[in-house]
Amino acid sequence: MPLSKNKIKYIQSLKDKKNRTEHKTFVAEGAKLIIDLLPVCKCQFLAATPEFLKANTQIKAEEIVEASEDELKKATFLKTPPQAIAVFYQFDNILPDIQNELSLILDGIQNPGNLGTIVRIADWFGFEHIYCSSDTADIYNPKTVQATMGALARVRVYYLDLTDLLSNHKDLPVYGTFLNGYNIYQEKLATKGFIIMGNEGNGIRPELEKIVSHRISIPNYPTERETVESLNVAVSTAIICSEFRRRM
Amino acid sequence: MPLSKNKIKYIQSLKDKKNRTEHKTFVAEGAKLIIDLLPVCKCQFLAATPEFLKANTQIKAEEIVEASEDELKKATFLKTPPQAIAVFYQFDNILPDIQNELSLILDGIQNPGNLGTIVRIADWFGFEHIYCSSDTADIYNPKTVQATMGALARVRVYYLDLTDLLSNHKDLPVYGTFLNGYNIYQEKLATKGFIIMGNEGNGIRPELEKIVSHRISIPNYPTERETVESLNVAVSTAIICSEFRRRM
Repeated sequence: MPLSKNKIKYIQSLKDKKNRTEHKTFVAEGAKLIIDLLPVCKCQFLAATPEFLKANTQIKAEEIVEASEDELKKATFLKTPPQAIAVFYQFDNILPDIQNELSLILDGIQNPGNLGTIVRIADWFGFEHIYCSSDTADIYNPKTVQATMGALARVRVYYLDLTDLLSNHKDLPVYGTFLNGYNIYQEKLATKGFIIMGNEGNGIRPELEKIVSHRISIPNYPTERETVESLNVAVSTAIICSEFRRRM
Repeated sequence: MPLSKNKIKYIQSLKDKKNRTEHKTFVAEGAKLIIDLLPVCKCQFLAATPEFLKANTQIKAEEIVEASEDELKKATFLKTPPQAIAVFYQFDNILPDIQNELSLILDGIQNPGNLGTIVRIADWFGFEHIYCSSDTADIYNPKTVQATMGALARVRVYYLDLTDLLSNHKDLPVYGTFLNGYNIYQEKLATKGFIIMGNEGNGIRPELEKIVSHRISIPNYPTERETVESLNVAVSTAIICSEFRRRM
């Protein structure tokens, strides 16, 4: 059975959050990402080249179709058409117990690529849960899914009211990154709690800033030298996660 | 004088490296970036809205034209047309004295956005010179220029034979990042020398790997946990630069 026009239309429709939410599904492309997701995520639909299917006979999906390169080219969101395109069901969103770990909080991250890169960083440094404001980019955006490089299989991402979340965990420290915060290299860093990363242009919003218990920043070098105003938010997240983990 | 069709064509032609090399120019867009570059870079041509020109009467360029939003929309490389588009002359490429500092070496970084982000990181951490293999993305690619967020005004980027460069500085330590290198948090880090970052997919090429004197890596956490295969190259650069500067 070839990849039908209707199926191509369905895959393409999942570029829009509205349609992803309606179907509770999302698209993942490329052999590595799909194989990473299969053990943790139910696959609704897989379209792949005959070669891919021959090499991966163990794959389980509700529907599997053989597709030509030309069909994959029509269905893909990537510049170079992949060997395989899959539609997965979204993860269940059951909040975990968060007393005993460090977690990331994202307050209005707009760029889908930044979000995906942050999930990849979180996976590398063993941050298993990320809590996002509802105006943060959607984790199931195809650009975000691809940018996670498979980290989506191991890091759970939740959308919720962040003020509520933090009010329910007043015993835990809340780190926030600010240009005028305390030098992270010299601060005492906890092994449990939250690290908030703010919006690309505006940083952490005032309601959340009030709840921050530890204001930190990444010092530039040498401090008196003129420099760019800030670092990219994914880059800052990486340096901060690295510094927390270095101490552990 | 409005922004002529020929000028729009000229700006658009600078998307291609061939044309940038022929004219020895490049495009920078947006008020902040242009104002950052003006003190260090000769401006060939500026097209801007009447409001921008009124607010920035001190700007010096060989030619300045008032442009409508519609004209800027036709000339821009950005999704949202900026208030101003400038064409600058490229920097002179005179190699500096590199005995007394830490410098970055980029070996085949392909993605123009990654290169721009790395220049921004270098600026933040005071790495003033970056040496690139000739197959590294072009610093004057419009995407790279924009991604530097103005760091291009303070960080000089050179393209040259890296093996030659390193052969001429055998007395300096050469750090290279490998997935199986020594834990960077525990290694002794020098205050002079070179840090090589490799290609996004293939890492550092064998000829250069032979010259590396210190193999380092960023440990994941916890080390026994399954994780993504690697970090993005700009993200790795950020963590490594941060760790070198933390010690200084």
